[in-house]
Amino acid sequence: MPRPLRVTIWNEYVHELTSDAVRRLYPEGMHAVLAEALARLLGDAVRVRVATLNQPDHGLTSEALAETDVLTWWGHAAHEDVADEVVDRVQAAVLGGMGLVVLHSGHYSKIFKRLLGTSCSLQWRNEGERELVWTVDPAHPIAQGVPQPIVIEAQEMYGEVFDIPAPDELVFISSFAGGEVFRGGCCFRRGRGRIFYFSPGDQDYPVYHHPDVQRVIANAVRWAAGA
Amino acid sequence: MPRPLRVTIWNEYVHELTSDAVRRLYPEGMHAVLAEALARLLGDAVRVRVATLNQPDHGLTSEALAETDVLTWWGHAAHEDVADEVVDRVQAAVLGGMGLVVLHSGHYSKIFKRLLGTSCSLQWRNEGERELVWTVDPAHPIAQGVPQPIVIEAQEMYGEVFDIPAPDELVFISSFAGGEVFRGGCCFRRGRGRIFYFSPGDQDYPVYHHPDVQRVIANAVRWAAGA
Amino acid sequence: MPRPLRVTIWNEYVHELTSDAVRRLYPEGMHAVLAEALARLLGDAVRVRVATLNQPDHGLTSEALAETDVLTWWGHAAHEDVADEVVDRVQAAVLGGMGLVVLHSGHYSKIFKRLLGTSCSLQWRNEGERELVWTVDPAHPIAQGVPQPIVIEAQEMYGEVFDIPAPDELVFISSFAGGEVFRGGCCFRRGRGRIFYFSPGDQDYPVYHHPDVQRVIANAVRWAAGA
Amino acid sequence: MPRPLRVTIWNEYVHELTSDAVRRLYPEGMHAVLAEALARLLGDAVRVRVATLNQPDHGLTSEALAETDVLTWWGHAAHEDVADEVVDRVQAAVLGGMGLVVLHSGHYSKIFKRLLGTSCSLQWRNEGERELVWTVDPAHPIAQGVPQPIVIEAQEMYGEVFDIPAPDELVFISSFAGGEVFRGGCCFRRGRGRIFYFSPGDQDYPVYHHPDVQRVIANAVRWAAGA
Repeated sequence: MPRPLRVTIWNEYVHELTSDAVRRLYPEGMHAVLAEALARLLGDAVRVRVATLNQPDHGLTSEALAETDVLTWWGHAAHEDVADEVVDRVQAAVLGGMGLVVLHSGHYSKIFKRLLGTSCSLQWRNEGERELVWTVDPAHPIAQGVPQPIVIEAQEMYGEVFDIPAPDELVFISSFAGGEVFRGGCCFRRGRGRIFYFSPGDQDYPVYHHPDVQRVIANAVRWAAGA
Repeated sequence: MPRPLRVTIWNEYVHELTSDAVRRLYPEGMHAVLAEALARLLGDAVRVRVATLNQPDHGLTSEALAETDVLTWWGHAAHEDVADEVVDRVQAAVLGGMGLVVLHSGHYSKIFKRLLGTSCSLQWRNEGERELVWTVDPAHPIAQGVPQPIVIEAQEMYGEVFDIPAPDELVFISSFAGGEVFRGGCCFRRGRGRIFYFSPGDQDYPVYHHPDVQRVIANAVRWAAGA
Repeated sequence: MPRPLRVTIWNEYVHELTSDAVRRLYPEGMHAVLAEALARLLGDAVRVRVATLNQPDHGLTSEALAETDVLTWWGHAAHEDVADEVVDRVQAAVLGGMGLVVLHSGHYSKIFKRLLGTSCSLQWRNEGERELVWTVDPAHPIAQGVPQPIVIEAQEMYGEVFDIPAPDELVFISSFAGGEVFRGGCCFRRGRGRIFYFSPGDQDYPVYHHPDVQRVIANAVRWAAGA
Repeated sequence: MPRPLRVTIWNEYVHELTSDAVRRLYPEGMHAVLAEALARLLGDAVRVRVATLNQPDHGLTSEALAETDVLTWWGHAAHEDVADEVVDRVQAAVLGGMGLVVLHSGHYSKIFKRLLGTSCSLQWRNEGERELVWTVDPAHPIAQGVPQPIVIEAQEMYGEVFDIPAPDELVFISSFAGGEVFRGGCCFRRGRGRIFYFSPGDQDYPVYHHPDVQRVIANAVRWAAGA
């Protein structure tokens, strides 16, 4: 019996506290929805804890990271408030083998830019457009169990050029109602760690309630753990 | 003064002879339009010749290949009529350093499947949809001088999953009015040769008259030559 | 309880029958040593069968392939005797998701060249030199449990240039006493299938009795199964 | 007539000033030898300037970078003395399209680690061993005009594991008399910029006087310029 994967869900947890509209979608925070989804989809195979920006060390002490197999990261409004010392620590953990799943606006987080070395800039437009998430690598573990395409009725548009190094594995490409495309599901390997970036998910839409999006994130957690 | 690149434009040249509609778009064959475009865009830097299926050895004798720096390939209706011996010869030439630019339905040509080792299958639908060709690697030589995106008013849809090995360089991703996406601009390196696949172009639409499409093909010829 | 991986060990099985020296190293064939090693190292997680060139359809009927999760391939003296129809069938199985582990001189097999599209040529010298197999991707599943480097006292030298497409993942690089280097542990993904090439192993040396070499092959079988 | 490539050779320039042994090899600094080599090999195609650590802004002001097409980087003893502000500036320049050629112990420079996101650690031993530099990608522009292998009589050993992201293109692999291997010629693409890392070269050996090493660096400068 293998021990459970230890997952830490990190959420900036700012929009949910400051916006009524966001709180209606995520009354207990996006992290709560993700935690519930992982527990439901992966069952005894995972043990989930949550960490947020306003905790001491943002909940990411050396001890916490030492007991984390995979860290998920959502941030947007407060990237700059993440302490450089914590970023150093998370980077070291990833290079040492911890998995990292970066979500949506986390593309601009310090830790993602640190690990990739590029600006991680992209095009965007927030008009609630339909996003289609197409699998381009159907044998990839992260793409198992989702339809072709995943249909997300309303989303912020993220478009190319996405300034990242060429991904080590490209799993998903999104299109938007406006015609844009985006490499929204990308694997990177850095040091001994595995990194997955997944673009769907914005505080203004109920994307993390979407069952296919939850399935991808659950798959990504397992993949990032090297399981 | 470097010597000119020697380009051979290969065209199956079947649809133009059998369909009035196609002939109206390409009265002298698609190869004639491509030859004119390369001569116009690259000038003295290239010397263009044409070869077609119905010529002896499909116009691709050992001598012809020995004098070719880059070969472009368009085929659709008659892939199976290409002699295996000629495919062997073209494969050897590519591995020896000849560039190859494979266009549109050439994804199912014997030579492309031979060099890639996969089925090269894809999804398609021919309803004259708008295609947008997005650059994802803006520093790539093949992407120079074209708008973001290239707009093609009417095209056959090609969609994922495209069963190819992960490209060595991914330059363009297309979206279609129906929402599909396609890795339509892909570089592969095989042996000493460079291969570029570019999906726009169908006999039913005037795509090879499109100035941006012509620009991409001219850029690809120079890139594939290793110039 | 997951069902066991179904592994088919394919061996040309010619040298062992025609050379006393080889028979002394592998009295029941190299396949017997590999089958024993996989059974010992992977236990109930695998079910191993063996197939050889001289069987009907080389032991690789459609039925046999349909019941194979991972195929290992060793050939050298009789590559040309493998029927093209069987190669077609194995290629289709790999593209459909069967794993393939190609060993040593299998680099020149029809199936490896078919799947990669290149000549797969290399430099070689058979003087029983020491080979060191260095891990360059220490987090890769195939590199788990082996020393840095693996030391093989006597081996045929395989050297660069190895005419393969850039591997999707490079796991091992060998050096030889004569100073040559070789990308001897390479992963490729084609269609839905995973391919691993591993260069150690020659009929003239007891390489497949080497515990670290056996460990790598066992790891590769699990990796190629997508397990 | 294209304008000349503007190359800035950056050298920490510490060992040459503090060690008699190093000064005997490089009386005017390693930068002087590299500058002379580039001027000799590339002629009117380049215009070379030099910058060193002890200059204001280490000679890398915004103005200097704006007039640099390719920057080469050698550092060892004083990586930590490079100002973070200058590293920010160089990173931005690379992402904006400036080429970067990182030499030998520059693997531990702030700028290289910043752009790659990993520790860039490696194994090493300084015993004046013979290094052989093998080309594994013979069609690559950086590998043109050098023998297979390049023989360097005495060098510091650099060995795997080299903690870098998988290179976008792997051009050279070195072996050392002690049997180690090293991915010593690696291309990375970040933003619009091209980066080449080349491991030969140590202050204790006359490696930058070696004609093949000079040829590689000249080739790399042209490649990194996107020329």
